[in-house]
Amino acid sequence: MSTHLNGGGATIAVDAMGGDHAPDEIIKGAVEACRRGVKVVLVGQPEALQLKLAEHDGVGIETVDAHDSITMDEPVTQALRRRDSSLRVAANLVAAGDAHAVVSCGNSAAIMAIGLTVWGPLPGIDRPAFGSMLPCKNGDVFILDIGANTTVKADTLVQFAVMGEVFVQLSRGIEAPRIALLSNGSEDSKGTKEVKEANEALRKLPLNFVGNIEGDGVFDGAADVVVCDGFTGNVLLKTGEGVVSTMFDLIRTEISKDFVARIAAALMLPTLGRIRRRVDYEEYGGAPVLGVNKIMINCHGRSRAKAVTNAVLLADRMAREGLVDRIGEALQHDDIEVKRRRRLARALHLRAPSV
Amino acid sequence: MSTHLNGGGATIAVDAMGGDHAPDEIIKGAVEACRRGVKVVLVGQPEALQLKLAEHDGVGIETVDAHDSITMDEPVTQALRRRDSSLRVAANLVAAGDAHAVVSCGNSAAIMAIGLTVWGPLPGIDRPAFGSMLPCKNGDVFILDIGANTTVKADTLVQFAVMGEVFVQLSRGIEAPRIALLSNGSEDSKGTKEVKEANEALRKLPLNFVGNIEGDGVFDGAADVVVCDGFTGNVLLKTGEGVVSTMFDLIRTEISKDFVARIAAALMLPTLGRIRRRVDYEEYGGAPVLGVNKIMINCHGRSRAKAVTNAVLLADRMAREGLVDRIGEALQHDDIEVKRRRRLARALHLRAPSV
Repeated sequence: MSTHLNGGGATIAVDAMGGDHAPDEIIKGAVEACRRGVKVVLVGQPEALQLKLAEHDGVGIETVDAHDSITMDEPVTQALRRRDSSLRVAANLVAAGDAHAVVSCGNSAAIMAIGLTVWGPLPGIDRPAFGSMLPCKNGDVFILDIGANTTVKADTLVQFAVMGEVFVQLSRGIEAPRIALLSNGSEDSKGTKEVKEANEALRKLPLNFVGNIEGDGVFDGAADVVVCDGFTGNVLLKTGEGVVSTMFDLIRTEISKDFVARIAAALMLPTLGRIRRRVDYEEYGGAPVLGVNKIMINCHGRSRAKAVTNAVLLADRMAREGLVDRIGEALQHDDIEVKRRRRLARALHLRAPSV
Repeated sequence: MSTHLNGGGATIAVDAMGGDHAPDEIIKGAVEACRRGVKVVLVGQPEALQLKLAEHDGVGIETVDAHDSITMDEPVTQALRRRDSSLRVAANLVAAGDAHAVVSCGNSAAIMAIGLTVWGPLPGIDRPAFGSMLPCKNGDVFILDIGANTTVKADTLVQFAVMGEVFVQLSRGIEAPRIALLSNGSEDSKGTKEVKEANEALRKLPLNFVGNIEGDGVFDGAADVVVCDGFTGNVLLKTGEGVVSTMFDLIRTEISKDFVARIAAALMLPTLGRIRRRVDYEEYGGAPVLGVNKIMINCHGRSRAKAVTNAVLLADRMAREGLVDRIGEALQHDDIEVKRRRRLARALHLRAPSV
């Protein structure tokens, strides 16, 4: 189903109108990605595109006109009615085979809905998920779902594990990523009914499943992929952001109380800056919507040029590596796609429902 | 049902044998609480108690013998069979009216089980909860449940809100604590089925309910009480601990890379120490098990003397303020106890089930 590159490079359709700093920062970031060798098509309002491309030395970058755009808090039903929105037109380019991935910093719910509407779900996947890369001790950890599905079934968690495995293999070059289930205890017996069932099923699949993990384990670097429902994933992500922000606030408050500390802090500015960057979403450049039938990279609404550049580079790599096909192969390899329900039922020791 | 103090002081039964640093640090902390005017009964193995009391200048503190103790990771069923464990004997003292509250740093699951077995649940409460006080911007926030109930119903979340309100009123002197529901979005429409129903019910009760809150809002100081199921509460708590620990690690790593930063860090040591203390569980001195029919303060297993002292002071205050009676009154006042289900059904626009 996915567009094959046939030896050529990938083309990345960038939604120039989505995000808090659109179109200026989006275009700036896309121009930089072009400079680094990625083929980009910018999709948006023609006047805005031409003006900003000229400002950012991006004359010559291919553009496609879209006369409408989706606002950040627009309801999905309304967003889907905008047939000429920059996001929709970008997705259409991929559907038509004229591009291989979409990058957007716009309305996440609309990104998910348009991916599903225009491309459909990835065969074998019940529910797509939002992923996110987070900093942890000695590296990064990829979490999914961080918000698409408030509640999930056990087999959806298993599918998230397979999608996360493939994404981390391709994006970070880790052959057998350590996969963990987020729970309220590391023992197999801990968790909701769905987590316990998913734990049992994952133990029987050919994955590097390391078991359950608690919130502190996520940041300890004990896993490369952490799987959870979107409610819990959102709590984890937002708690992490909140604690980091509170810590920097505390440091600022405490420093201001003390003259010696103020001088010391001035000397430490470069160090504190490095730490800030280490925990900053900008470095991560967006995360994939996994489970739709093409490649969609969703960036934070607050993204600036640097995050956009990183997202385009990620999209390019995922397109060249064939992310969607590779997930399909993994589902087959893990016997999930074809005999998914039978296999899972077996793993869970369930009998066929007697109606 | 609760033991009335009749104008006299409270007596706090301290489980001297529970916790990673028992009995040494427990006894040291209890002796300090005595010095600050609290009447303490230490419960534990007589030889250990006498030896350590002599060491810590605590000769004269009342003791009660218990010849058995519960280990930190002992299964609940086994813990309940130890009729002469220090925790069980301490709970019996309260049941007999010889003490007014228990403080224990031991096995949390056993603490909950013994509270329920010896004292029973608080009338009107379906499921007891573990609470925890966390640092946030400009103050503290009280979270419940942090681990007793993996899944909960909407009316259990409502009961948590009432218990949290009373505890924060009494422990922090806030007349109308701001109560929030932890969710994956601040809109009323966000959350699991249970969260959405609880939101609707809480809006109709005479509480200072401020709506849904996300993980970052918890640390922003937007609420005084945050209500959630124990699975999500555990994720929030452990994520907070993990992020704080990762941040200190990052600071340490970055500082070691840079000579100037190393000197600056040395100058900042007192400031960093103050921040460490601000986010340290030791300062909080344990948290209540809410929903059992007497007062139980549960401390972190790693607690040292200072945390124990703070926990005993908290237990004393809660006993003198009549925590359990006050929760009972609030449940009646909020019309939750007597007509609980009918009221909730009305709030949720439900009809009586047609069987």
